[in-house]
Amino acid sequence: MPRIDAERFLRDLNELRKIGAFKTGVHRPTYSPQDMESRRWLMERLTECGLEATIDGIGNVYGRHPGPGPHLLVGSHIESQNQAGWLDGALGVMTGVALARAGLPVDVCAFADEEGHFEGGFLGSRSIIGELSEDEIDASRSRNDGQPLREALAAAGLAGKPRMQLEPGRHKGFFEMHIEQGTNLESKGLRVGVVTGIVAIWQWLLRFEGQQDHAGGTTMAERRDAGLSAVRLLAAIDAEFPRVCGERSTWTTGRISLEPGAPSIIPGSAEVLFQFRDVSIPVLERMEATLRSLLQESNRREKCVASLTQKSRATPAICDPAMMAALEAAAAEEAPGAWTTMPSGAGHDAQYIAKRMPVAMLFTPSIGGISHHWAEDTKEEDLALCCQVVASAAAKFLAA
Amino acid sequence: MPRIDAERFLRDLNELRKIGAFKTGVHRPTYSPQDMESRRWLMERLTECGLEATIDGIGNVYGRHPGPGPHLLVGSHIESQNQAGWLDGALGVMTGVALARAGLPVDVCAFADEEGHFEGGFLGSRSIIGELSEDEIDASRSRNDGQPLREALAAAGLAGKPRMQLEPGRHKGFFEMHIEQGTNLESKGLRVGVVTGIVAIWQWLLRFEGQQDHAGGTTMAERRDAGLSAVRLLAAIDAEFPRVCGERSTWTTGRISLEPGAPSIIPGSAEVLFQFRDVSIPVLERMEATLRSLLQESNRREKCVASLTQKSRATPAICDPAMMAALEAAAAEEAPGAWTTMPSGAGHDAQYIAKRMPVAMLFTPSIGGISHHWAEDTKEEDLALCCQVVASAAAKFLAA
Repeated sequence: MPRIDAERFLRDLNELRKIGAFKTGVHRPTYSPQDMESRRWLMERLTECGLEATIDGIGNVYGRHPGPGPHLLVGSHIESQNQAGWLDGALGVMTGVALARAGLPVDVCAFADEEGHFEGGFLGSRSIIGELSEDEIDASRSRNDGQPLREALAAAGLAGKPRMQLEPGRHKGFFEMHIEQGTNLESKGLRVGVVTGIVAIWQWLLRFEGQQDHAGGTTMAERRDAGLSAVRLLAAIDAEFPRVCGERSTWTTGRISLEPGAPSIIPGSAEVLFQFRDVSIPVLERMEATLRSLLQESNRREKCVASLTQKSRATPAICDPAMMAALEAAAAEEAPGAWTTMPSGAGHDAQYIAKRMPVAMLFTPSIGGISHHWAEDTKEEDLALCCQVVASAAAKFLAA
Repeated sequence: MPRIDAERFLRDLNELRKIGAFKTGVHRPTYSPQDMESRRWLMERLTECGLEATIDGIGNVYGRHPGPGPHLLVGSHIESQNQAGWLDGALGVMTGVALARAGLPVDVCAFADEEGHFEGGFLGSRSIIGELSEDEIDASRSRNDGQPLREALAAAGLAGKPRMQLEPGRHKGFFEMHIEQGTNLESKGLRVGVVTGIVAIWQWLLRFEGQQDHAGGTTMAERRDAGLSAVRLLAAIDAEFPRVCGERSTWTTGRISLEPGAPSIIPGSAEVLFQFRDVSIPVLERMEATLRSLLQESNRREKCVASLTQKSRATPAICDPAMMAALEAAAAEEAPGAWTTMPSGAGHDAQYIAKRMPVAMLFTPSIGGISHHWAEDTKEEDLALCCQVVASAAAKFLAA
């Protein structure tokens, strides 16, 4: 079995951490100077371990193994959320570098904008599988400051570069290592999570139309309070979703906006950002049907009209059984009794790569479950252990 | 009985409407150039009808009747909400001018910032009764743009001017005419509302502390979702308040803020602006006790800690029975069968003036109940009718 150079792996990670450092984390939004510096730094590392390094027109950095196959693809993303953690996607990219340094026949990729700083998100992994159109690039803007994506690409020196596509048949599978972003491993004292699948996120905008009025002059009976109708529907979701959800389903209201949002004005309209996630399409469809029937009930009872717009409807990705088996066998060897299987509640590049090849993911513990915050962290011994599990699993899967 | 010059009254109102005109309404925020222009214009009108006009250090415009008493005080405010209606407070001020033109022994006052463009609100009526301290003026800032009140007063040319106080014993009572800001009159086909009292507004900030987490990685059982705790408490208020409220109580959630407010992040904290109103202190106290016990119940059940801060706790103002009787008698003569009595759900300058003398208010209908919006309007014949009712009532009350 190949052994990774754990000390070198951690040194690489800590060197990358200095680029865009923010407190104990990093601030490397997609195509920012810090992000582009990290991509150039990565290309040097890829070249160093014998891969042919390129960057393409969407910012994907790719290191191609020059030797004979079968090959694996290993990677993740290198940009960060704003003022966020040092590991997150960078961990998966540097795991690819560690496997290459260990002599495994891997291509390594850092996909651009998994974090969705630009509308659409997952630009790199969608581009490399041929699912990102020029029209979408034309239309997309930064969610941070509204800058058009085309402008950001030009400023980063990427305008006019071709966008690479995966070479059909080249890869036997894709491994992505990532932090868990939850406390499942930590709370059970485990060190390795073999991912069974990646949930799909179905995102919704709920809108309520009422009548804006003075909060003193308008009696309770006369009101058409859009905020109140929103609260009632959210309370109904809270009561009904547990009856139809799956064992690991999640549902979240991230934002409630009442217009105009003043203390003495009855809200004339309300908007709610709502999402649910699961790995099973039948479960997702059951939650959707429940949401739609609660909306219908709201429109029967309430004086404010509720409407529903679906903002995203992804397909869940199931991890490849043979790749999972390789990860499980490697975890059993390297971390006996300290590993488990679990779904990924968050989206990852692997969910798009899964449309072109078998994929598998490995999770490291997240200290305190903290994610998308500069305080995110994982113990160095867990990072090294999980990297070794991926390396061993890669060798097993290639040999199978 | 004195007769007002209805044609002149409407001409005055329409001339004032041109100052800061916005669509069919006006935009005259307190101390803005448009607001100060309207105050200067008002001083000319007051002088024109024989009153001694002054402006004081908080922007109150006062027209003092030079003749012998007993005197009445009549007025309201002349600034508007942002991009709001042409009548609102301006109607009550110009009613005072119409009564003066009709020869009644009235002082006329336009109180500054009833609309609360600056923190604290009701600056003029609180100042004139001696309940606005220099410290509060030092600390207050614009709610629109954060400008310190002192700076705004200086820019308006008011710095260093003395602030006038009501002359004890001078006035037999205060009449304020205002638009209803609701649809009670309109929906019953009525043209005149004699106000029984002004509700007190008790304003609250509800705060919920949870744990910000990734909406995918954190299971439903692990979550401490501050937004969800807020929704549950608001649903409980919606269920419980009807059991303890008075016949005309109102309660309103004007704003719900979830932090950080992103689609894929479990809210770590939530803030809710909540208020209730009633004319009865026992009813207000019952609603407060219910709110506090629902909060206690929330803290027993929920994983997020809820806390409550009272932002304002006003005293309701009861209208003077003799003044109300005069208004009712005048309404019965001028608008037989087309008037009613009703509480004021909104706050008005009269609630502060009531601390120094008897007060009464008259409401005109609001077309469609629209208020604090440029589309606010009232039929001209209703404006003229209600102005005449106040004039007749003033004469009756003076003679009583």
